[in-house]
Amino acid sequence: MKRIVLLRHGESLWNRENRFTGWADVDLSEQGMAEARKAGDALKAAGFSFGVAYTSYLKRAIKTLNCVLDRLDEAWIPVHKSWRLNEKHYGALQGLNKAETAARYGEAQVLLWRRSYDAAPAPLATGDAANPAEADRYARIPANERPRTESLKDTEERVLPYWKCEIFPTLAIADTILVAAHGNSLRAVVKHLKGISDTDIVKVNIPTAVPYVFEFNDALDLTGDYYLGNPEEIRKKQEAVARQGQAKQVARRI
Amino acid sequence: MKRIVLLRHGESLWNRENRFTGWADVDLSEQGMAEARKAGDALKAAGFSFGVAYTSYLKRAIKTLNCVLDRLDEAWIPVHKSWRLNEKHYGALQGLNKAETAARYGEAQVLLWRRSYDAAPAPLATGDAANPAEADRYARIPANERPRTESLKDTEERVLPYWKCEIFPTLAIADTILVAAHGNSLRAVVKHLKGISDTDIVKVNIPTAVPYVFEFNDALDLTGDYYLGNPEEIRKKQEAVARQGQAKQVARRI
Repeated sequence: MKRIVLLRHGESLWNRENRFTGWADVDLSEQGMAEARKAGDALKAAGFSFGVAYTSYLKRAIKTLNCVLDRLDEAWIPVHKSWRLNEKHYGALQGLNKAETAARYGEAQVLLWRRSYDAAPAPLATGDAANPAEADRYARIPANERPRTESLKDTEERVLPYWKCEIFPTLAIADTILVAAHGNSLRAVVKHLKGISDTDIVKVNIPTAVPYVFEFNDALDLTGDYYLGNPEEIRKKQEAVARQGQAKQVARRI
Repeated sequence: MKRIVLLRHGESLWNRENRFTGWADVDLSEQGMAEARKAGDALKAAGFSFGVAYTSYLKRAIKTLNCVLDRLDEAWIPVHKSWRLNEKHYGALQGLNKAETAARYGEAQVLLWRRSYDAAPAPLATGDAANPAEADRYARIPANERPRTESLKDTEERVLPYWKCEIFPTLAIADTILVAAHGNSLRAVVKHLKGISDTDIVKVNIPTAVPYVFEFNDALDLTGDYYLGNPEEIRKKQEAVARQGQAKQVARRI
């Protein structure tokens, strides 16, 4: 049996503040580090050992991965990083508080921006220095291909070539692969792996720092998938993710 | 100008206990983590920015590197790991206290084992499970090539192919390279870069977690080298490294 484990990063400082993050390179919170340690310990307890790992160019995913590998005593394995695993680019919304945005634009519009398959938030201007995609690390992306905003469809279109050409074929030579990334880049992968429709993918909420295990037979067909952890705890985490776009969170916070 | 920065890991738990470490995969101490942060901050203050980094299969080097990259806000750069950058293998001495070993065998013998160019400590037995080189991560090294002990010459012979074929040629496409490794694997590199003799290399003591900068012109000729930091502090660190094999450290500790 071969396995790929998808892992969404732990809580970031902006998750905590309920702000749209996207390509902004925000660090993990203390809770996020604790979540990562817990994920590493759960994988270790379940006997997981990885041959190779993949992550994005964003530190919240990289540090989640480093922490998990440290707990597994597998810091030495090859780690490949790609901007193609970055979070969905949230355009002009990046940095804004989700609940405040909902109070201003309405929950329906925010849910559309966050969760519709093919609607993208308003784009940043071409060459806008406030666009994280203009940072040096993305210099190898042709200027006119650097995201200024993205729908989930756009995210899927830049994640899947890397998934298909780099990550998945490696399963032929590595039995167990770890991918530490983001809510929407992983949603694109899950949509592809499980054949989920454009409509239904919107309702899939991947909880933070819970290992999501996909099993494959030797012919590399998907044979099963499950979250590693306590089902009740995972359900609560998924509900918390789904709730983030609700305006009433403003009231709760005030 | 092109630059390669060599960085010896910060203090490990066994450095603290003055034990021979070699290929044993010992973690950094709290002080070691603090040294790594300081090295990262010094590199940042001096304006360093890296295109790629290399490290060993041992967590004390990997975690030093991760910490430095975090301080530089460059966790996203490609990092390549190789067992060829591992510390010198100390054979049967691994795990023993250096000062106790000196008290037992004499300082001269310990200095020979630690610092002569071509004398290796007594080897571990073939296939000895206590040999860290028998761990899964080294499965791609042919069994009869897995080190059971090493002289500095042996270390040099397995480090330099990686240096010559992987690290150094990358200087043609990356202006600034970081190599986080170990006292003896880096000594082998310094010997090669500076043309130091078999006799003189024994007296070169690389301090922990002080960036050692090598500058090259566009023809990739070495044009200069220096330690980044306070000269007095660096001298003290070098003396501390040189002193580790002295028997009187036992008395100091008791």
